[in-house]
Amino acid sequence: MRIVLATRNAGKIAELRRILDFDIVGLEAFPEIGDVKETGLTFAANALLKAHAVAQQSGLPAVADDSGLCVDALNGMPGIFSARWSGRHGDDQANLDLLLAQISDVPAEHRGGAFVCAAALALPDGQERVVEGVLRGTVISEPRGSGGFGYDPVFVPEGSERTTAELTAAEKDAISHRGLAFRALVPVVREVLT
Amino acid sequence: MRIVLATRNAGKIAELRRILDFDIVGLEAFPEIGDVKETGLTFAANALLKAHAVAQQSGLPAVADDSGLCVDALNGMPGIFSARWSGRHGDDQANLDLLLAQISDVPAEHRGGAFVCAAALALPDGQERVVEGVLRGTVISEPRGSGGFGYDPVFVPEGSERTTAELTAAEKDAISHRGLAFRALVPVVREVLT
Repeated sequence: MRIVLATRNAGKIAELRRILDFDIVGLEAFPEIGDVKETGLTFAANALLKAHAVAQQSGLPAVADDSGLCVDALNGMPGIFSARWSGRHGDDQANLDLLLAQISDVPAEHRGGAFVCAAALALPDGQERVVEGVLRGTVISEPRGSGGFGYDPVFVPEGSERTTAELTAAEKDAISHRGLAFRALVPVVREVLT
Repeated sequence: MRIVLATRNAGKIAELRRILDFDIVGLEAFPEIGDVKETGLTFAANALLKAHAVAQQSGLPAVADDSGLCVDALNGMPGIFSARWSGRHGDDQANLDLLLAQISDVPAEHRGGAFVCAAALALPDGQERVVEGVLRGTVISEPRGSGGFGYDPVFVPEGSERTTAELTAAEKDAISHRGLAFRALVPVVREVLT
């Protein structure tokens, strides 16, 4: 069974291929499908918006994810706005710099947070499923590490002394919010599609 | 009875003098008192931190306030970080521009929010009281009006068609979060101090 993953990010496609033994194709196979506006108010809503749009336009089952960093002292923000927190979508450095400046006075014991990922499956007939993965941790004030992307250099998962930017890809996959969500989606996809 | 208002903002001092018939002095009368770090996680905690610090150092009853804009779509943020949302404390224009950029995709029906103000009284002997005032409204996308400060140009109170930056000072006092909180504090101050 062929499934479209609603992303042009090669890393995400490879990750989903590693854990789901279906024929995964990315959006690059569907150049006619444009970007979907993420107007939802939750990760799950945005993941479903994207999955439905791609399922409708491709005529194939579609998987999409939406994820971000939820900082306790910011009431769970940047959350769904993580990738555009500074107002400039995808500017990782500006987003990270802004977050650190905002919580610069927040003491270490109140710098908890979580990476959250919603992974959604939508079928051309309108069926949908959505699951979430959560990785709790702490936001540190000095970035460390060069792996990953986004807020990885300032996020230390619970039980770790390294930031998610200091983990190998395999170590990160094993505990990450996206790994958790994609793995939780596997039995759901199998049940719906077979 | 003399009361210190923990601010150097002449507008706030004048406002409190209008509604509280005590002898109100501002921090300019106490040049030896430095700035208090706002390390609390709520408006009330920060207002109390400031009031206690000033009461201890001045030896007089002290009133302090902390306030901000809580946007529903941002889970109540900027909240206590309103004055430093862009990472630059007190840069009203940068803070407002950032907020508008962050919620630019949020549709009108989900742009509700509230101005919230906590007003605290602390005595040199450690007694404390705190009250809150809330003004619900909507965050619009195009700033209007030149009155007020902070986020006033993009906030339209419920029941109004004008932004809080388009209201006169008297109109704003009558409905504003700070006016509500200071007026709610009046009977509390009278009870504690007389």
